[in-house]
Amino acid sequence: MRQLVSALLRTETAQAHCDLPCGVYDPAQARIEAESVKAIIAKYDASSDEVFRQRAVLIKEQRAELVKHHLWVLWTDYFKPPHLEQHPDLHTLFWEATKLAGAGGAKGSMDAAVAQQLLDKVEQISDIFWATKKA
Amino acid sequence: MRQLVSALLRTETAQAHCDLPCGVYDPAQARIEAESVKAIIAKYDASSDEVFRQRAVLIKEQRAELVKHHLWVLWTDYFKPPHLEQHPDLHTLFWEATKLAGAGGAKGSMDAAVAQQLLDKVEQISDIFWATKKA
Amino acid sequence: MRQLVSALLRTETAQAHCDLPCGVYDPAQARIEAESVKAIIAKYDASSDEVFRQRAVLIKEQRAELVKHHLWVLWTDYFKPPHLEQHPDLHTLFWEATKLAGAGGAKGSMDAAVAQQLLDKVEQISDIFWATKKA
Amino acid sequence: MRQLVSALLRTETAQAHCDLPCGVYDPAQARIEAESVKAIIAKYDASSDEVFRQRAVLIKEQRAELVKHHLWVLWTDYFKPPHLEQHPDLHTLFWEATKLAGAGGAKGSMDAAVAQQLLDKVEQISDIFWATKKA
Amino acid sequence: MRQLVSALLRTETAQAHCDLPCGVYDPAQARIEAESVKAIIAKYDASSDEVFRQRAVLIKEQRAELVKHHLWVLWTDYFKPPHLEQHPDLHTLFWEATKLAGAGGAKGSMDAAVAQQLLDKVEQISDIFWATKKA
Amino acid sequence: MRQLVSALLRTETAQAHCDLPCGVYDPAQARIEAESVKAIIAKYDASSDEVFRQRAVLIKEQRAELVKHHLWVLWTDYFKPPHLEQHPDLHTLFWEATKLAGAGGAKGSMDAAVAQQLLDKVEQISDIFWATKKA
Repeated sequence: MRQLVSALLRTETAQAHCDLPCGVYDPAQARIEAESVKAIIAKYDASSDEVFRQRAVLIKEQRAELVKHHLWVLWTDYFKPPHLEQHPDLHTLFWEATKLAGAGGAKGSMDAAVAQQLLDKVEQISDIFWATKKA
Repeated sequence: MRQLVSALLRTETAQAHCDLPCGVYDPAQARIEAESVKAIIAKYDASSDEVFRQRAVLIKEQRAELVKHHLWVLWTDYFKPPHLEQHPDLHTLFWEATKLAGAGGAKGSMDAAVAQQLLDKVEQISDIFWATKKA
Repeated sequence: MRQLVSALLRTETAQAHCDLPCGVYDPAQARIEAESVKAIIAKYDASSDEVFRQRAVLIKEQRAELVKHHLWVLWTDYFKPPHLEQHPDLHTLFWEATKLAGAGGAKGSMDAAVAQQLLDKVEQISDIFWATKKA
Repeated sequence: MRQLVSALLRTETAQAHCDLPCGVYDPAQARIEAESVKAIIAKYDASSDEVFRQRAVLIKEQRAELVKHHLWVLWTDYFKPPHLEQHPDLHTLFWEATKLAGAGGAKGSMDAAVAQQLLDKVEQISDIFWATKKA
Repeated sequence: MRQLVSALLRTETAQAHCDLPCGVYDPAQARIEAESVKAIIAKYDASSDEVFRQRAVLIKEQRAELVKHHLWVLWTDYFKPPHLEQHPDLHTLFWEATKLAGAGGAKGSMDAAVAQQLLDKVEQISDIFWATKKA
Repeated sequence: MRQLVSALLRTETAQAHCDLPCGVYDPAQARIEAESVKAIIAKYDASSDEVFRQRAVLIKEQRAELVKHHLWVLWTDYFKPPHLEQHPDLHTLFWEATKLAGAGGAKGSMDAAVAQQLLDKVEQISDIFWATKKA
């Protein structure tokens, strides 16, 4: 069924993201990295291997940085003034989401709840994004 | 409806991709970049601005490199020997797909048909990927 | 005199910027890249060498990307809710500045006036930044 | 004598590696990083300094990633279908080598034997590479 | 007063740094990263949180690498033979400074005194740099 | 015969290059990139395809940057004061070599002779490097 859905949504799931701009943006990029952050914390918690846990710390740092980057790109490059009018909390949402990915959030914490909050915030942004694509 | 589908599929759309490994892989990463390559070529064709076209050339180079990277990660990190048994053409498929993203394909060409071939090949890999997730 | 000023201001010019966070931020990072963008455009205009001009296009792309990155870091990592209360236009300012560095601004243009607008916007942000450091 | 050998082999040791393609490939790039991985593990074992050992973990992660990258480039960009006919195990070899550099191998382990296995596998690929250059 | 100084010095504080070259160089880039290295060590010393300290180790590694990079760029790209005649210790200074940022210095140490030595060396280079700008 | 030579020299061809330091350095890293620069220029000259030539310009820029990086690493990380005593022109050699890779050399030129000069300079450094390994 995933393929069917994928086939149905194909044209609309292709969004622009480079700054040519090519016009292809997709919040899945941020979400995948946020899922990774969450999964890394789970694996860190489940392991007692010192080296593995150190690797988890450093890889989480990189993945959280990618969450920030993909969100920043969406905020600056995809969203336009008319979107802001319809979604006045857009700036706040991105500010909170990128802060949640940073030192005060997923980078600085090994708390699974923090990773989940980040994921939820990314999902909120994703919902707004897809709403603008339909408008 | 996209949100509904997204909600339904959420747990299964989260796959691992970093090399901890966190266990989150998603062919969407390669596909988004391949869509970008295709969109860049369309914008290049539609423009007569010299500087814009040069920017298109250099940005397409980066995006095609990312297609290769994301595919390589899937091939080496996600797929395991049992998958190969079920999909004996796996190596060939990835070899052809990454070559299609490179100098003999999307990097070296401004042909929209080549970008489409790359996208189709990524889709083939994506179908196999999702089939293994259900097995 | 520059050394004197530099000596006098040393402790206060050191601000944090990595996401440990180390606490060292400095808008000079964004400003230096924005100056570079402006200088590249001037050199592009002054040259009739085809290869040099192509190099200018690609290097400007990288420098403008760095302007965006350094601004995003300031926005997300340095500025806190109390700053926003005192400077309610903070989000707008950063949104406009990063957009000015992107496709609709310095990346997508060879116009010296656009580079100057970017520089001015970075200076506005810099002024707010330094005001918050004194508060 | 190294200089003599180097002088004799100079034209043939220059292989292409960027994806223009410039036509310069050299498995030495992967081998140097694999030697580094092995040396890092030896230094890690010989040290009881906590910070040094943490640095070893993170630097090994980067070097192992470079092994993977250089191998992927050789596999996709250098090797062509006729090479595969002569070396039917080419795909398997690269798959195993890149897996040996990853989480299930040199990235995920502090075992010197694993690093040596990676080095041996890179050497096998190197031998095939040089054999194709002579054919 | 910072803004006033900044306004007065604006044209002269803009130096070139990319290798077009755009002609904009500024030792502040190296100094900011060196300040960060110093601040990271202070935060490391003040914390007893295991994960925070591991993050400090890895982030310091990156910042120290950036110090090296910015110094190398100044040495190779900005300084010219006439500068060397006036400052015959230029090579020694850069060699020592970049070594101080590396394994035998700030990368390999958690000693605040080493970070300060690096900062002092960067300041020495900065003084020479600004002296050449006035000549 | 290459394999034989390679087997004979194996232990001595492994030099350190990361800044742990792992102790593995090899001037081949710089030489391979310099060979690439030279090959790119040859391909640029042989082509009349506009897009191909633009790609050559941008890829040469990256490869020349890598030459600089690998040389800087050797200069700062591998060479020590005793080497300088034996090779008093070390600083000059590296300064000239990295300048030859930059804007005033291989980056800023499409002249095959410049690429050859860079390669020769890298070879000179390589000879000194290997001489120090035997001492």
